[in-house]
Amino acid sequence: MTATKTELIQRLLTPGPTAVPAAVLREMALPIIHHRTKAFEAVFAEVGQRLARVMKTAGPVLSIAGSGTTAFEAAQVSLARPGSKVMAVAGGKFGERWQDIFDQYAPALNLKPVKLDVPWGEAVSPEALEAFLGEHGDVDLIALVHSETSTATACDLKAIVEVVRRKAPEALLIVDGITSVGAMPVDMDGWGIDVLVTGSQKALMLPPGLGFVGLGPRALDRLKQFKAGPSYNLDLRRWLKSHAQNTVPFTPPVSLIRGQRVALEMIESEGLEQVWARTRMLADASRAAMDALGLTLCSKSPSDSVTGIFYPQGADDKKFRNRMRDEFGIHLAGGQDGRGASWSGKIFRISHMGFVTIEDTVAAIEAAETVLREMCPDLPGKPGDAVAAARAILDRA
Amino acid sequence: MTATKTELIQRLLTPGPTAVPAAVLREMALPIIHHRTKAFEAVFAEVGQRLARVMKTAGPVLSIAGSGTTAFEAAQVSLARPGSKVMAVAGGKFGERWQDIFDQYAPALNLKPVKLDVPWGEAVSPEALEAFLGEHGDVDLIALVHSETSTATACDLKAIVEVVRRKAPEALLIVDGITSVGAMPVDMDGWGIDVLVTGSQKALMLPPGLGFVGLGPRALDRLKQFKAGPSYNLDLRRWLKSHAQNTVPFTPPVSLIRGQRVALEMIESEGLEQVWARTRMLADASRAAMDALGLTLCSKSPSDSVTGIFYPQGADDKKFRNRMRDEFGIHLAGGQDGRGASWSGKIFRISHMGFVTIEDTVAAIEAAETVLREMCPDLPGKPGDAVAAARAILDRA
Repeated sequence: MTATKTELIQRLLTPGPTAVPAAVLREMALPIIHHRTKAFEAVFAEVGQRLARVMKTAGPVLSIAGSGTTAFEAAQVSLARPGSKVMAVAGGKFGERWQDIFDQYAPALNLKPVKLDVPWGEAVSPEALEAFLGEHGDVDLIALVHSETSTATACDLKAIVEVVRRKAPEALLIVDGITSVGAMPVDMDGWGIDVLVTGSQKALMLPPGLGFVGLGPRALDRLKQFKAGPSYNLDLRRWLKSHAQNTVPFTPPVSLIRGQRVALEMIESEGLEQVWARTRMLADASRAAMDALGLTLCSKSPSDSVTGIFYPQGADDKKFRNRMRDEFGIHLAGGQDGRGASWSGKIFRISHMGFVTIEDTVAAIEAAETVLREMCPDLPGKPGDAVAAARAILDRA
Repeated sequence: MTATKTELIQRLLTPGPTAVPAAVLREMALPIIHHRTKAFEAVFAEVGQRLARVMKTAGPVLSIAGSGTTAFEAAQVSLARPGSKVMAVAGGKFGERWQDIFDQYAPALNLKPVKLDVPWGEAVSPEALEAFLGEHGDVDLIALVHSETSTATACDLKAIVEVVRRKAPEALLIVDGITSVGAMPVDMDGWGIDVLVTGSQKALMLPPGLGFVGLGPRALDRLKQFKAGPSYNLDLRRWLKSHAQNTVPFTPPVSLIRGQRVALEMIESEGLEQVWARTRMLADASRAAMDALGLTLCSKSPSDSVTGIFYPQGADDKKFRNRMRDEFGIHLAGGQDGRGASWSGKIFRISHMGFVTIEDTVAAIEAAETVLREMCPDLPGKPGDAVAAARAILDRA
């Protein structure tokens, strides 16, 4: 192993930002075009159409400059009816953030926020949600996470939407699909999701800087029902009005949007279902490899977009991830802290989203096995078992 | 003249987005690095330091994903003390936007907005501001535009700040320097500007997607005085806390920030004063050329970053700008509409900000003269007079 300290030969296997294909980087390096031109409008329209197909919706998908958080906050503040009861479900850092945002707007909009918390590493179950909504059937807006990146956990979104529809038929549902859209099955219209939010720097293979908001018919209807809340930039009414003219209300990140067109073209060329299947296969292989090392996943309901693993006794987070990066050129993520748990230093995460190949994943598993066996000589089995377990899955595919 | 319909050989002389140098485009095309790394933190810190030198401030300069409007709204909502009187000065589309944002937050924060309007094409005078503040000395927050892009007008910012300090010593001043920072003299600390906002896609030679907020000591002090307003993303307290650790609270546009480092390096290599002088010279040359054609500038107090010109009788906006673009490969901006005027179709604008050379400007003037003389045979002088007038300025330099 030679030292590969330069980023030029690193594999970025973090759950956002993720690696960006060369064709996308090249597109973003084209000379800047002005946003009030037919050329840009055509690109913008194509991005919107492709995003709608990836989200599986007939509704508009807005492109908002900023992070996934920007887009999610825009949905929350634009759809929270003043004086209403709002709810966010949390089982990790991002669900907690959506709870915080409702709390922050509560005084201005006279909101009555309620919270459903599940332990980190567990997904909200349809049963738990049903019981909670039994007490809060008057809730008007629900925010929840499909794939919680901090805990590498995914819920059964289809079943969850069914419960919402049955127990709180008047409520609108905003789904955080930031690490699920383009990585695992999501059917916005088929499942009846009112608002679906995602970001550019995850499965959509772009650098960070864009958030996307898909709007279903009930959300579009609600946007007409009352006046905007306090924010100007984050008022979806303003974005929607411009969207109908294939543009945005404020100067958009033109190079990112051009890059997004190419990335979406790549996804649709491979085929959305094939992308989901590849992501699933890489996740399955990684889980099998970790199992072969006797390690425990962070999640009882693991997401396909990212695998989180508790470190075994004897492994040191900083040393492990530094060696992975500096000796093997593989960049993994550590854990995060929140209200429900402090996983910083206790877990590592391997991403499967977006521009990740079988070879990237095998390389990460082989390197992780090597370093972990050195740090923790008591791990079960023999060197190569983790890679072999992964290979068994990958060869079947 | 051959048709140059492709953007690859167009000169983008619009006042944002502006052309991006190849070295910056190339830097942005590097493989993505993760934002929670020493490598990114070093880039981020360097961008912050260079921005502070360009703004001439010892205070922190925050980098916020989004447009210039995102950054300006963040300053407004984060610094507006609940229950206070706030004020925005408008003489164009952007000043009107800052008025709208105060209005939009007024119910949530119990703000009492007041407005000082000046006619489009005029700058607010120190005298008018002094008279207005004589009646509103209790104003707690003032937003005003240094260079109003929609009308190509700049105010005497140094004199304006003096009036604010004298007549409303308790008020904080937020300055929209979106098309002035990096284009014309601005001395944040020397003049006593509390908050200075700019954007990436103007004189800073980057694609759109980043806004920047410089914070002086009085602004930093006020951020500690009361709790945040409604917004989560736009709460500067959150950004400031992360900034101290060379990072941001939400996944940042890493490729844009890396590009910004190179663009700022280019500005500092040329020398900030030299950049200002070049911009001024291109503006002077353009103004002399338009004068030679007998045309009237939009502004009685023209900005150096962009020149706005009323069309002469007989010229058609769409036809003129389409020919400029399609035959000559020169992309100019038209006019905008607002509460104070409707200049769409009535003016055109040539930008001098950022990556614009003498040759770009001469080419634009020569092409504009050619097309306008064809459209309006009664224009004074003879073909070549406009270019000669510009050349007289450029040769002196």
